[in-house]
Amino acid sequence: MFSCKILLTNRRHILQTTICRAASIAKGNAAIDKRATAVQKPPMQQEHHSSGNGSFDSVLSATAVIFGGSLLTYLITEKIKNDSAKIYAKEVSLDEIRKAHDAVRKDLPEYTMDEIVKHNSPSSGIWVTYGVGVYDITKFVPKHPGSDKVMLAAGGAIDPFWHIFQQHNTEEVLSLLESFRIGNLRPDDVVGTKDLHDPWSTEPKRHPILKPATLKPFNAEPPASILVDSFVTPTQFFYVRNHLPVPDVDVKSYELELENEKTGKGKTIHFKDILNYPKHSVTATIMCGGNRRSEMMDVKPIKGLPWGAAAVGNAEWSGAKLCDVLRDMGVREGDDEGHVQFEGLDTDPTSTPYGASIPLAKAMDPRGDVILAYEMNGQPLNRDHGYPIRVIVPGVVGSRNVKWLGKIVVSRNESTSHWQQNDYKSFSPSTDWDTVDFKTAPAIQNMPVTSAICTPATGEKLAGKDGFVTVKGYAWSGGGSAIVRVDVSADGGKTWTVAKLDETEKGTGPGRHWSWSLWSADVPVKPGQKGAVEILSKAVDSNYNTQPESFTNIWNLRGVVGNAYSRVKVTIN
Amino acid sequence: MFSCKILLTNRRHILQTTICRAASIAKGNAAIDKRATAVQKPPMQQEHHSSGNGSFDSVLSATAVIFGGSLLTYLITEKIKNDSAKIYAKEVSLDEIRKAHDAVRKDLPEYTMDEIVKHNSPSSGIWVTYGVGVYDITKFVPKHPGSDKVMLAAGGAIDPFWHIFQQHNTEEVLSLLESFRIGNLRPDDVVGTKDLHDPWSTEPKRHPILKPATLKPFNAEPPASILVDSFVTPTQFFYVRNHLPVPDVDVKSYELELENEKTGKGKTIHFKDILNYPKHSVTATIMCGGNRRSEMMDVKPIKGLPWGAAAVGNAEWSGAKLCDVLRDMGVREGDDEGHVQFEGLDTDPTSTPYGASIPLAKAMDPRGDVILAYEMNGQPLNRDHGYPIRVIVPGVVGSRNVKWLGKIVVSRNESTSHWQQNDYKSFSPSTDWDTVDFKTAPAIQNMPVTSAICTPATGEKLAGKDGFVTVKGYAWSGGGSAIVRVDVSADGGKTWTVAKLDETEKGTGPGRHWSWSLWSADVPVKPGQKGAVEILSKAVDSNYNTQPESFTNIWNLRGVVGNAYSRVKVTIN
Repeated sequence: MFSCKILLTNRRHILQTTICRAASIAKGNAAIDKRATAVQKPPMQQEHHSSGNGSFDSVLSATAVIFGGSLLTYLITEKIKNDSAKIYAKEVSLDEIRKAHDAVRKDLPEYTMDEIVKHNSPSSGIWVTYGVGVYDITKFVPKHPGSDKVMLAAGGAIDPFWHIFQQHNTEEVLSLLESFRIGNLRPDDVVGTKDLHDPWSTEPKRHPILKPATLKPFNAEPPASILVDSFVTPTQFFYVRNHLPVPDVDVKSYELELENEKTGKGKTIHFKDILNYPKHSVTATIMCGGNRRSEMMDVKPIKGLPWGAAAVGNAEWSGAKLCDVLRDMGVREGDDEGHVQFEGLDTDPTSTPYGASIPLAKAMDPRGDVILAYEMNGQPLNRDHGYPIRVIVPGVVGSRNVKWLGKIVVSRNESTSHWQQNDYKSFSPSTDWDTVDFKTAPAIQNMPVTSAICTPATGEKLAGKDGFVTVKGYAWSGGGSAIVRVDVSADGGKTWTVAKLDETEKGTGPGRHWSWSLWSADVPVKPGQKGAVEILSKAVDSNYNTQPESFTNIWNLRGVVGNAYSRVKVTIN
Repeated sequence: MFSCKILLTNRRHILQTTICRAASIAKGNAAIDKRATAVQKPPMQQEHHSSGNGSFDSVLSATAVIFGGSLLTYLITEKIKNDSAKIYAKEVSLDEIRKAHDAVRKDLPEYTMDEIVKHNSPSSGIWVTYGVGVYDITKFVPKHPGSDKVMLAAGGAIDPFWHIFQQHNTEEVLSLLESFRIGNLRPDDVVGTKDLHDPWSTEPKRHPILKPATLKPFNAEPPASILVDSFVTPTQFFYVRNHLPVPDVDVKSYELELENEKTGKGKTIHFKDILNYPKHSVTATIMCGGNRRSEMMDVKPIKGLPWGAAAVGNAEWSGAKLCDVLRDMGVREGDDEGHVQFEGLDTDPTSTPYGASIPLAKAMDPRGDVILAYEMNGQPLNRDHGYPIRVIVPGVVGSRNVKWLGKIVVSRNESTSHWQQNDYKSFSPSTDWDTVDFKTAPAIQNMPVTSAICTPATGEKLAGKDGFVTVKGYAWSGGGSAIVRVDVSADGGKTWTVAKLDETEKGTGPGRHWSWSLWSADVPVKPGQKGAVEILSKAVDSNYNTQPESFTNIWNLRGVVGNAYSRVKVTIN
């Protein structure tokens, strides 16, 4: 079996530790760090209906944290170049894949893990193993996004990573990997995945209305038509965006680490300590940064989950005000330079948690309404939405609304998390994966104004009633801006009907409009107009920002902040 | 001469008082109210080079406050319908106009002012006089915008109004008015404008670089190319937007009235009291709500000044924080529901001051940086920019940055000013003057993201140097959002060059970016590309809002918040 080696470099240390840990768990050994203690593996006690958590972006970006992700990225880029196909490769079973990689190539030499470990830098060459295969990916690494992260896996096995990020289990990824093959791993050194703990075994159940884009991690949205049925989205219909296995947290042993880098002080608090703060409720829409990506993909392929327009929901969240907690951490009023970093209890195979940060000024603003939520729609958070504690950052992209909160750090710096630094950013349409420099763009915080037509759906056949068709949808703008108008057209923008704002929040004050507006419009169709009709919607927010007309000029390689006009094509009978 | 009548209705009272007052001033009598005392008529002591003040919108909307404006509005609407011409009618001299209206029409009866005064309502008919002409405008009034304001002039002379709003002195306006003629005014009752004080006699001198759109009131912008020369716009080049004659204020007798409707308390403070507050400086861009209207006019005619892209400037403003003053007025932290109303010392013939309001939450936000400015670019404000005190509301449309500040009112309500209620709002492209209801739209506060190409200008002939053309401009977003990127294209958006942000503010923190960013880009032109080339720019702000592609779908009847892509057409030699 695989021998556990502790190397001198930190990253290698983390990787190897994790591999050891995965094996340990599988063998029933005690978990090896505090986080592993907090996050329990036994069967769930709390089996809510699962529901979406409004948070992050793409599975692919998540996986780009580690080598496997970059390989997938590469493969997809190649695939796009080759056939302009959609990004999702055909899934094959893990067993099939393992079979292929368990095959010894007799034309190639055998290596021991001791030898492979030495190839962990560009100068020595970058080798990895998967199954019995040994691969030299030196040439692959520097050209592609996330290459810094690739080095975590350099000189070791990628099996534990891909055991979690199972979307790598495709013919395409494996074919590409095989093209880098240089040898066979000594059988005794092969990492047996059958011995690894299955991190997906304790996933919560979800409502069948949620259409999964990926199952592991679970990412799913409801049909858009259901969104306009209620101003507050029922929890079980709320989209779910997970990057990693859902941690199973026991609230009795739950700990929230607090650290203030400015003062050098820290402490640990428990669930009941959070309950002791004054309870604050805020109704807020949470939207995935990649919401409506599928529409942007029609311009040009994009790496990322092909979200429709329903990676968004509006809920009432209740919890402690973050500013109250921060004050108790020694943050003073007006001392608002810097950031508040959040870490989740969901971790990757290197024990790196999901992470994000928001500006300290937003966190400390009493009108910013940032809370450490323990309730959603009047019930305890369910596991998919961050049980027991999730940060709710109204007006801000879902990815900063960190779930399963494990740690808060007040810092002069943003989170160093991959998702803060190398994802959830947007670029010029002319920036591609060969030219992108993630440092040149700010991490998305406030989201732009958008609207979407939820009903009718593209392809529907309608009877134009009395010369009108009824159109319904939502509109929302980040940063606390209100929606002041939605215009709808069925004649390509020659005439616009001002929609009725059916449900919108009242009395929250300027800059504090966190909820979407649901709207409806009876849009005239020309007398006798039959056949294909395209219906457009565009929203205007209280800053009088409006949506760009098409996705063409806002296309970006991550497929985020896609807020062009909503367009559905229907047939009038 | 005209006989001074005090009627029972308030508005009539104001009108007649003003007419009396205008006559009084002309006769050298003492001014009749406190405001008239504060605003002096003697020759200016302080003769700065004049420079723009970043404030309001259209002369036409200003004049719509009174009857004359509505008439002009009507005329323009008709003109647009008839020949789609631009809005500005040919100017004729006041003397010529007076001559025409001094002509008695022997085919029509004579009326006394006593008779005319009775015709001051729809039920009795709405009559006005101008020169010796008597006009029945009953049918004109209800159909057109500002009809509430028309009633101020009902049953009286419009001469004093048009003496100030001299843009009515056109053949077109007079022809329309003449079509409503029903009689001749008794010679003794005619309002002699020669006896009226000339409110324009003490206007400051302005720098010749400012190209006036109108002289009285003075509205002018510099050439756009000059804007990109410096991050801080020199005061003398800063656009000027005046609605009314510039008041000539003696700082020694200057009084600022403070009123808190919530507490019922009020007081008056003086210039030195404002100096006693801690001095706060903020570098902020101020932009006219109608900036770039001329581009929107290319879609369809609009009533309003045909501003180019230079009704904007960036300056350092210094003064007292408004929140400090409000606290001394009894406004408590967190009690931020409601509005802060401002009144200028510039008044119309009914003694109605220019007015506007902002949300109290913005005013009280210590990060909102609202100040009562007495300095611009290190010098005392000049007269065109609001000497001695102007409100600076960073991130907010120019029209709320009230100049010549005379009064501050903390209120549960917005300003009732015409400019707050019936102007500086935007509507659907399908809303016209027949269907508009100003109550349905919020008053513009924060401005949307925009950019403009300042050089080259449309029509320029360029030598594409090494296959590139150099493009420069500004980008700005209201509400404290930063500019994060500007994309420039010379091939219709097929490829985009990311501009270099040459000058942009640093270290102001999230939500507190008040200044524009100046940018430049070397944009590739195709090898051998000659002839007409259209260059586009679009900015992205820190909320990832971006500009709409064209003005077509953001066209609005007031021509405000025009933030579509900037497009200049040049010739490559």
